[in-house]
Amino acid sequence: MGDTATAQSAPKENWKSVAARKKAAQTAAIPKEWIIELPEATRRNVTSVPKECGVLSAKELEITDLKDVDALLKKLASGEWSAVEVTTAYYKRAVVAHQVVNCLTEIYIDKALAWATELDKALAATGEPVGPLHGLPISLKDQICIEGLDTVMGYVAWVDRPAAKNAVLVDILLDAGAVPFVRTNVPQTLMWGETFNVVFGRTLNPHNRNLAAGGSSGGEGALLGMGGSPLGVGSDIGGSIRNPAAVNGLYGLRPSYDRIPYEGAVNSGQGQEAISSVLGPMTRHVSGLKAFTKAVLDAKPWTRDPYCVRKPWDEASYALAEHGRGEKLCFAIMWDDGIVRPLPPVRRALQRAKAALEAAGHTVVDWVPPVKHADFRPVVLSIFGAAAGEDVLETVQQSGEPALSTMDPSKPPKDRVDAPEGGKLVWKRDGRPDPVALSSYEFFNVCWKKRELQRLYLEGWMATKEKTGTGRPVDAIITPVGPYPAPPHGNHIHAFFTTWCNILDYPASVFPVTVVDPQLDLPEERTEFFGPEDEKVHALYSSADIFKDAPINLQLVGQRWEEEAVIGMTELVDAAMAAYK
Amino acid sequence: MGDTATAQSAPKENWKSVAARKKAAQTAAIPKEWIIELPEATRRNVTSVPKECGVLSAKELEITDLKDVDALLKKLASGEWSAVEVTTAYYKRAVVAHQVVNCLTEIYIDKALAWATELDKALAATGEPVGPLHGLPISLKDQICIEGLDTVMGYVAWVDRPAAKNAVLVDILLDAGAVPFVRTNVPQTLMWGETFNVVFGRTLNPHNRNLAAGGSSGGEGALLGMGGSPLGVGSDIGGSIRNPAAVNGLYGLRPSYDRIPYEGAVNSGQGQEAISSVLGPMTRHVSGLKAFTKAVLDAKPWTRDPYCVRKPWDEASYALAEHGRGEKLCFAIMWDDGIVRPLPPVRRALQRAKAALEAAGHTVVDWVPPVKHADFRPVVLSIFGAAAGEDVLETVQQSGEPALSTMDPSKPPKDRVDAPEGGKLVWKRDGRPDPVALSSYEFFNVCWKKRELQRLYLEGWMATKEKTGTGRPVDAIITPVGPYPAPPHGNHIHAFFTTWCNILDYPASVFPVTVVDPQLDLPEERTEFFGPEDEKVHALYSSADIFKDAPINLQLVGQRWEEEAVIGMTELVDAAMAAYK
Repeated sequence: MGDTATAQSAPKENWKSVAARKKAAQTAAIPKEWIIELPEATRRNVTSVPKECGVLSAKELEITDLKDVDALLKKLASGEWSAVEVTTAYYKRAVVAHQVVNCLTEIYIDKALAWATELDKALAATGEPVGPLHGLPISLKDQICIEGLDTVMGYVAWVDRPAAKNAVLVDILLDAGAVPFVRTNVPQTLMWGETFNVVFGRTLNPHNRNLAAGGSSGGEGALLGMGGSPLGVGSDIGGSIRNPAAVNGLYGLRPSYDRIPYEGAVNSGQGQEAISSVLGPMTRHVSGLKAFTKAVLDAKPWTRDPYCVRKPWDEASYALAEHGRGEKLCFAIMWDDGIVRPLPPVRRALQRAKAALEAAGHTVVDWVPPVKHADFRPVVLSIFGAAAGEDVLETVQQSGEPALSTMDPSKPPKDRVDAPEGGKLVWKRDGRPDPVALSSYEFFNVCWKKRELQRLYLEGWMATKEKTGTGRPVDAIITPVGPYPAPPHGNHIHAFFTTWCNILDYPASVFPVTVVDPQLDLPEERTEFFGPEDEKVHALYSSADIFKDAPINLQLVGQRWEEEAVIGMTELVDAAMAAYK
Repeated sequence: MGDTATAQSAPKENWKSVAARKKAAQTAAIPKEWIIELPEATRRNVTSVPKECGVLSAKELEITDLKDVDALLKKLASGEWSAVEVTTAYYKRAVVAHQVVNCLTEIYIDKALAWATELDKALAATGEPVGPLHGLPISLKDQICIEGLDTVMGYVAWVDRPAAKNAVLVDILLDAGAVPFVRTNVPQTLMWGETFNVVFGRTLNPHNRNLAAGGSSGGEGALLGMGGSPLGVGSDIGGSIRNPAAVNGLYGLRPSYDRIPYEGAVNSGQGQEAISSVLGPMTRHVSGLKAFTKAVLDAKPWTRDPYCVRKPWDEASYALAEHGRGEKLCFAIMWDDGIVRPLPPVRRALQRAKAALEAAGHTVVDWVPPVKHADFRPVVLSIFGAAAGEDVLETVQQSGEPALSTMDPSKPPKDRVDAPEGGKLVWKRDGRPDPVALSSYEFFNVCWKKRELQRLYLEGWMATKEKTGTGRPVDAIITPVGPYPAPPHGNHIHAFFTTWCNILDYPASVFPVTVVDPQLDLPEERTEFFGPEDEKVHALYSSADIFKDAPINLQLVGQRWEEEAVIGMTELVDAAMAAYK
């Protein structure tokens, strides 16, 4: 389990006590003068709390309200705003955010300000920024190790195990002049689309605290949704960047496998390489996607991470050299995935994207999936379940904490459950079939099925060349990120609008389109359903008011290893959406 | 098992009868006028048989003696030599080769000449070659499916299962104007460093027929060693391109995973993606490496194979932009791997390479491996053995043929062996521990160890920057390909001079240096050994005459995804060796 997994030598302490001690230490790390008067517990939308709370000065609000990452980087590189000033402003806003949505894990103000101070000194001494991300505060998901800090990743067992060294990405960000300034909350195991663990508790959606913050990068999502960071790094093995980015109204990018260095970060399911987790940016402005990705690739991560592909940032691809240089593209919209029909506000967002793209001179066609998306599910469940959660169980057994079986706050987290036959524990999750451990041979056969699906999808996509009118296959697919806005806590039912991209390893961005409008997005009557998930999702939407203020994002999917083009097309779509009234 | 695995509906025929029928059909495919008078069975070196046999005209000998692939391509592109003329000449020489070293599987003269005829017509009609490989005959390992032909891959069970379509690579080669003209022999399962199966029998080394032809691309090796093809395609999961290329005195390239498209080829261990098999070129002239690799990458294989990395041919990398533009490089030589000390002729080759490179102005240092190479072995054996050969057993059970337990011609191929407990068969191999099937979780843990070795090796390699004097890490590592020249049949004892590159996914070429010289390469006295393999290898070399005429190649290893630079450096080293007297 990487650097955090060195054995504890202290006598065994009850897991609840360890968790409480860690949480208390976190609270103690907050300066008294940054503590706010909490809004009423029933207040749903808390996004304006930073402005109201009085902790941030007018200048600090100005700094943290500047969403455009490129513009912020310019002010930092010129010295108009100092790194200390920007880091302080964002730290305050992050800590304020934390008090209303519980988004942080590690809080280490002195260390971050020390880095910022060095940057200011270097700029003063040389007149040059230290690197392309000079002075930019960057928040990191609680997997991405920083020397000397715990990486808890939702496990009591990992408290008090400070990392011996930085993750490769942290070294690269520091070299680029960034300030990795906070770490953010995750669900235990990371394998959930919501964010709760027994150490740090539950993260809430800042637009509507009755709703999930998404997951597993939910701490990032909620922090950025509060304006508490200009750019964060999440991870995604099934949607864990895109889901929290979407339900918090952000931009996010799930790159293809092995472009952004994962080396030195901890993870679940280590050694499972059939569907790999990837790191990627989450940000409040589309400019953050390129700023982050280009800076990391320009650092030649393949010289530090043996898995990173030797594939530099490709400016021609970003300029859409293989996509008509951005003129008259053909997008395909996937209105549903054949498993669940998206709820009314999501369908309105798709309609709006279609209209905006057509108004900008592009063609929009319907996406006809080359394989049934339902066929992805058994493959994904077999791969994710192949080890039957043995790594999870090994870890929770170290502390005695429960292996969570649900994200539903109305249910107590069930304890580990003994398998019917014999002493071996299994990790059961509500709403999922019991995990079945696979032999390696069975696992290889599932991987072979996966490859077949990948081949069929690629062939189908390439074959669209005959129908687009551009002489090219469909340039990108636009889809929902989920069938719903942020669902009420415990109700993330359907992850397959994102997970299919993880199986196929398609790079995918998400971008904000609208928010739920109770006037426009009326519940609909339906009597026919694709299946049980569809019916469950439909039932969630008994009233639009439940989802009030919830952002609606969409997803843009490109072909494998096309990160640069996906970023370029996301900027193009974002501009088209902005221009469309 | 891909397209060849459709169920047979015919009544069950004894496997020996099926094998004999297939072999007879192969013999019948040879035109009578191409049948030669066989040399004495005791004649060891048969490389001059094509010149002596009378089947090839003077022009056909001239054509097939032109090793330089670029020069051949120029003559074909200009029409100086027609595609039909060149294909015919190579077909004759291939069939002559086959009669003395048993290197072919599928012989399909009419089909190949039909392709060649179309190419000649196209050139005549347009004045332009069809593609970058216009008219080049290319031989293919018996994995790379061609529509309508069997792909037997050493299994009786796969006889009479013609492929429904071409492998992606075949389509790309045809589009590029190549003529895939013969297919070549392999060992059953491919997981051997020699070439024998019960359908087509044993392939012999043309330089010395008492010695192994290498494997698993041994049919390619022997064919090219006879001059029976200008360029072939092999596959490599542990050395299966480099070993047969080396023992036959050829050039070969093992590219990184997923650059050359594998889609549509059959394989063993399908779905095992921790150490992936790769396809790559084998050729008699260094120019073949670039000609093949560039032509395939220029065809954008990622548009047809979902696993291919979107990484075009990189001319700057080939021009050694990251390696001082080829001036004053620093090479490191690995004299042994800490497991086996190479035999005298191999050490002489290493000394010669060192002297030649220094004479050419480069620096040569000793390679100090960042991890013990012995540590690779348990990882590789666990990964290759994780399924305990279940796919092999499933296949042999279809026909009743034996699952081979040895390549030693003095031992009968042992039949399948029942496991001690219960009815489940296991695939046992002489000289290896019994296979232990792993659970997925155990497999993931092995993969995680592999990644750790990859990280340590990369870090160690990058750290050599401090010691090279070039400001760069070591540009490439030069190593033996094996500890011996081609060993006598059944004696391929030690594959780890090649297999470490498969674990680390380092691109590696092999190139010819010398041949065994009984005057220079005297057996040595040794009393201390690294271990049992070392002692066994030493014992093989009781007399240099056993290895008379056997080629000695070396290996050049680059960093991951550096195919172009490896090709560029191989050309540079090859030129330095030629210039050195």
